[in-house]
This record gives sequence, structure tokens and C-alpha cells, in this order.
Amino acid sequence: MDEAWFDRLDSTADEPAELFEHFREREFEGRTYHALSDTRHGVERGTVVLGDGTVVRGYPSVARVLALDAGLRSVFDPDETIHVEEKLDGFNVRIVRVDTADEANGDAEAADGTTVLAFTRGGHVCPYTTALARERLETAAFFDDHPGRMLCAELVGPETPYTTHDYDGIETNAFRVFGVRERAAGVPLPVAERRDLCDRYGFAQPRLFGSAEPAAAVEVVREAIADLDAAGREGVVLKAADGRSMVKYTTEAQHHDELAYAFSLPFDLGQDFVFSRIVREAFQAAEFDEDDERVRERAHDLGESILLPFVETIHDVASDEPVGERHTVRGDPDTVEALLYHLGQQGLSVEIIDDRWEDGERVVEFVKAAAATRDRVEYYLEGGTYDE
Amino acid sequence: MDEAWFDRLDSTADEPAELFEHFREREFEGRTYHALSDTRHGVERGTVVLGDGTVVRGYPSVARVLALDAGLRSVFDPDETIHVEEKLDGFNVRIVRVDTADEANGDAEAADGTTVLAFTRGGHVCPYTTALARERLETAAFFDDHPGRMLCAELVGPETPYTTHDYDGIETNAFRVFGVRERAAGVPLPVAERRDLCDRYGFAQPRLFGSAEPAAAVEVVREAIADLDAAGREGVVLKAADGRSMVKYTTEAQHHDELAYAFSLPFDLGQDFVFSRIVREAFQAAEFDEDDERVRERAHDLGESILLPFVETIHDVASDEPVGERHTVRGDPDTVEALLYHLGQQGLSVEIIDDRWEDGERVVEFVKAAAATRDRVEYYLEGGTYDE
Repeated sequence: MDEAWFDRLDSTADEPAELFEHFREREFEGRTYHALSDTRHGVERGTVVLGDGTVVRGYPSVARVLALDAGLRSVFDPDETIHVEEKLDGFNVRIVRVDTADEANGDAEAADGTTVLAFTRGGHVCPYTTALARERLETAAFFDDHPGRMLCAELVGPETPYTTHDYDGIETNAFRVFGVRERAAGVPLPVAERRDLCDRYGFAQPRLFGSAEPAAAVEVVREAIADLDAAGREGVVLKAADGRSMVKYTTEAQHHDELAYAFSLPFDLGQDFVFSRIVREAFQAAEFDEDDERVRERAHDLGESILLPFVETIHDVASDEPVGERHTVRGDPDTVEALLYHLGQQGLSVEIIDDRWEDGERVVEFVKAAAATRDRVEYYLEGGTYDE
Repeated sequence: MDEAWFDRLDSTADEPAELFEHFREREFEGRTYHALSDTRHGVERGTVVLGDGTVVRGYPSVARVLALDAGLRSVFDPDETIHVEEKLDGFNVRIVRVDTADEANGDAEAADGTTVLAFTRGGHVCPYTTALARERLETAAFFDDHPGRMLCAELVGPETPYTTHDYDGIETNAFRVFGVRERAAGVPLPVAERRDLCDRYGFAQPRLFGSAEPAAAVEVVREAIADLDAAGREGVVLKAADGRSMVKYTTEAQHHDELAYAFSLPFDLGQDFVFSRIVREAFQAAEFDEDDERVRERAHDLGESILLPFVETIHDVASDEPVGERHTVRGDPDTVEALLYHLGQQGLSVEIIDDRWEDGERVVEFVKAAAATRDRVEYYLEGGTYDE
């Protein structure tokens, strides 16, 4: 990496090498770029530097409050306006338009010598999301006016390679823009300005439930959470007006969904993943649930979300069914092929369940094989002992 | 430690120092001893060497099968007799009689120059259990006849400093001898011989449910587990006739009890503790539960065992109640004092809830304060954020 890039990253490291050693070299469409695989020296995970020195700053991790009322009062100033927006269960990408690198191959170049890329949270170009961003999002006018900004968007819907949450009205997949930031510095637009801007350029956004000072926002959040919970949706993100301070808060439905997911692959997901979801649930119950009966009902749903998928996975392994996350993707054959290659590059073992053509598109159903779960369940089912 | 002791320990270490560095020096009643804090080089955790070179071998860890039927067939030979004994939820100690060391103070010495000690699983002399073993167990005849053997016993009942499980007919606490071993080599007596011997010397033992070859033992275990589960008891240990191969298998009630315990102190107990109990439960449900309704019922109980104690702990912290394991102990004041000192030595912070006299004995109720749980719950309740 070029030492001249160091200043642009505005890190707390003393020497370029201290920071640069954590960047990994990657490649997409003949273009080489460097990505930071973990937050280091004050630079966010997923921050990318392209070959021409263009910086695409990572999206910051969003903290969570466990106690809603106390949390809002502790994170935000008492007279500050907080915007309560829906948090969607999808795949978080940063969409940028960059100059076509000299070395890039011709296919993806726009006539004007620029190209659109979608970077994942970890700083990979996702070929599938990039293809969707190029085809489905009308970004030309926006990037003509704001070449130095990036669209922070969630790819949601049942047909993405990463999440499968169903949303009303989204049959395959769609983008929701939840942030606009300076690409190089990562500074967000204020929430109100971003919402206007997105409306103007025709970008769909997450729902805004309301805006209020912390004391009043608690009630906005509680109503939003009740609605979202009933609809089986994820939760909310609370943002200060300037878009910088953010915290998230999620629904009971989301906790249970995630536990069900974790316990369908019990030996592949970390124990901290499981534990943190139970923690959220307990604090929410302690704050929200008005009587013992309600806590007990929640406990029953929690228990089901843990035990039922785990038992089902044991039965699946016993009867030799594939075990892992199931996804469906569709698109032109090159994009689908590039995606499968991309997943393989990331060490995922993908088992194709179905591969067909529909309306001129290739549709692939696959399972990301959960090898640890399969192997350990098999071992115990064969009588292996469990040493504690 | 004396290098001459090395051979006696029969380890896989090449040099005495490799093994000895893992021993810790401890002291009880003026007697110095060395204890192995973790299993190393083929020597069990809790193995002790006294000042005169006497070795008290550690009790081996007992593996668990998750799939009962397959597990029994995998661990034992098909024509071997397996004894199915109850596993009690208590405190596992090894009781030995040793020569009074020159440096030992006079109080505890028997007139014949010997003294009885109770070693914990980790190789500490527990002063409370030692006092009980001296007062409540008639060991003189046994040790006169078998000075080189040790009694492997569970201290059970509502008034022990370590466990609180209630057993019918045990008002305060009692010993159950589940093994007799050569003190120095750790070799167990065959199960049938040990049961006879204990009967002869008047030592109470865990219940024997039956003895059978593996294929038939599965049914014995399933019936035993059903009975024990209904009575809220822990489970069974299956032992080969020679007492050497052992595996354990536990009840649904025990899994839920342990989860309830873990989630009453959610940030003090390891996440692996929690996870391993859920694993047991899922494999048992997959093997035992005949229909979806039964799995769902189990899931509800599982959910209650997780969420209800956790929520209660959050409320306890909010209202400044003590948080931690609650115990009651009773005995002569010196023993109780020695126990409290012993617990403090092990880094436990003990909060006395009640301290009174009953029938000439000192009775102390205390809480082993769960500092991590208190601190983290407090932090979140004050609005602290949870970063994942």
C-alpha cells in the first residue's frame, strides 16, 4: 500500500505499517483493492482503499441498549432530537461509484469511465449485490451530483445470498437506503437531510416512526417495537439528528428468529452469539413485561426457538439431509457464477440443491454447509462421548 | 516437591519438573500438601501428595453420552455387565485416613496417630466436609482394615456449602459412598465388591437400578431416568463391572435446574456451561420424545429455566438484593469459621445473610456474591450499551 494513503485514513496509528499490516489485498473485475478486515487504530472494519487511493470508509458498528429507557437517556442529550427508523434484517452494503481503473476489464465500465461497486461490511465487493445495485438502483443522477458520497443500504428480501427475511411486497430482493455518507471521511448526512435527498433521487428508505427528544422517544420506540414484533420484523435504529450517534433495539420476534437460526447450526455459531440473544431477551422482558404470565409466555417461545430447530437438525443429520443456511439467488448466469465463486473464496462450502432457468434468469438454491454441526452431531449420534 | 515422588505418580511426563510445576502447595491444620490443579501428563486433577509422600489420586472425570442407546454400545463391550447407579447432585470428595504429620497440630489427631481428611475434586482439604466426615462417618473399622483405600463419596443435602439439592430424608447433609479406590494408584474396586464392602461397614450408597449387558441396560437406564426425572433428581452413572469405564447420563429436570442456576448468575458462569446443558437437552429430546407435542412441552420448560431466573436476577439487582448462590451451613463454630476462611482463600466473596445458634451449633446462611452478574446487570440497567 502507498504510504501517501496513510494520512487520508486519519487513524490513531503512529506508523503506516502498524495500520497497513491489517489490510488484505483483494480483487474484483481485474481491479485490486485493499480492505481492513477488523476495526484497528480508529479505522472501521471494512474500510477499503482502491488502487488510485480512493478511500471507502467502513460503516461503524452500532451499539445496542439493553434497557431502553435508561439507554436512551444515557446515550443521547436530553434536548436532542432522536429519529426512530426501522432496522431491517438484510445485508448491509456501501454502494459507491468510482473511476474505472486502468486495469479493469471492459464489461462493467460505464461509458463515462466510472463503475458502481457494492462493498460488504467486511470490505469485499459482493458480485451479486454489485450486479443488483447496477441493474436495480437508479444511481446515475445521484452520483453525478454527489460523486464523493456513498449510499449505505440494506439488501433485503427472500432471495439474497446472505439473509432470507421476507418483507411484504418484496418478492425477490430490494435495496433500502438508510444512510448517505462522505465516502472518504465516513461522515453521515443529518437524518432529515438524508431522508429528503433519498426521496428526491427515488431511493426507498426504511420507515421513520417518529422524531422526539429521548424522554418522549421511549414511547415512540415502544409502539414501534410492538408493531414490528407483531409483524415479525427486526427492530429500530435510533439516530441523533446529525446521524452520528446511533443505537439499536430489537424485537422479541427477532431474538427468537436468531436463536432459531443459531440452534439450527448449533456447533457452527459461536456460543457468544447464542448468549447475547438471550441477554437481549431477558432485559427486554424485565423492562416490558407487565406480569408473570407474559414473561412465562415469552419463555415458552424462547424455549421453542432453542429446542425445536436443534432437535430438527439432529434428525436431519440422522437422516442425511443437508445441514446449513438455505438461500435462493437469481440473476444472469455470470453474476450467479461469480457469486458462487465469491462464497467459495470466503471458505464457505456451498451445496447446490437446485439450479434452473426462470424467465431468462438462472435461479440457484444452495445450502452453505455447516460442517461443524454435521460432524459433531454425527459423532454424538454414533455414541461419541461429550467431555466437559 | 521431592523427586522421589515422581515415580509414584506414574505420569507420562519425561521429567519431574514438567509435572511438578502444575502442583500447588496448600496447608490444612498445620499440614502442608501439594495438589495438582488440572489434569496433566496422565495424572488426574486434584491428585494430592502429602508431606510424607502419601499420594491421594484424583477422581477421574466421567464422560457423558448424549445419545444413550448408541453411547452404551460404543463405550462398553457388548457382553460386559453394566451397573446402573444413581448419580447424586452433591459435592464429590475423597475421604482418606493418613498418618498424623509431625508438624500437624494436636486437635484433629486421633489417639492412634492418624487423621481423616476429605479432599475436594480440585485437591483442597475442605474443612467443613472433613469435620462432617470425622463426626458423621464411622470410618475407623474400615480404615483399620483398609488403610490404603479411599472412600469416594458425595456430600448431599440442603446444608452444604457447595450444593443445595434436597433429597428425601436428608435434613441437613449426608454422605453417599459411590466408590472405593486404592488411594495411591486410583484403581477402583469392582462395583459388586464395593457395594458389599460398603454394606458391611455401614456406608450408605447411591441406589443401584440394575445390572445388564449394554443392549438391555438401555431400558434399565430409560426407566431409571423416567423415575429420577419425576422426582427431580440428577441422573445415573453407568459403570463396567470392574468399576473402570464409566459414563453418565442425566435427567431433563437436572438440565433445567442447571440452566436455571446458570441464568440466575448469567455473567458469572461460562457460556460453555449454558451451551452444554442445552446440548444435552436437545439430544435427549431427539432420542426420547415420541411426538412434537412432547418436544414442545420440553421446550417450554427449557425456556422457563432460562428466562425466569435471568429476569428475576435483573429485578434483584435493580432492587439491590444480594445476587449469588445461597447456602446454609451448620456445625461447631471453629468448623464454620474455617469454612468461611477456606471459601475466602478461594477468591469467593461471601456475604453473610444470617448467623445464629441452634441446638448448640452455629448456623450461617450466606451468599457467594456473583460480582460479574451484579456489575454487568447494573451497568446495562443504567443505560450502558452492549457492543457485539
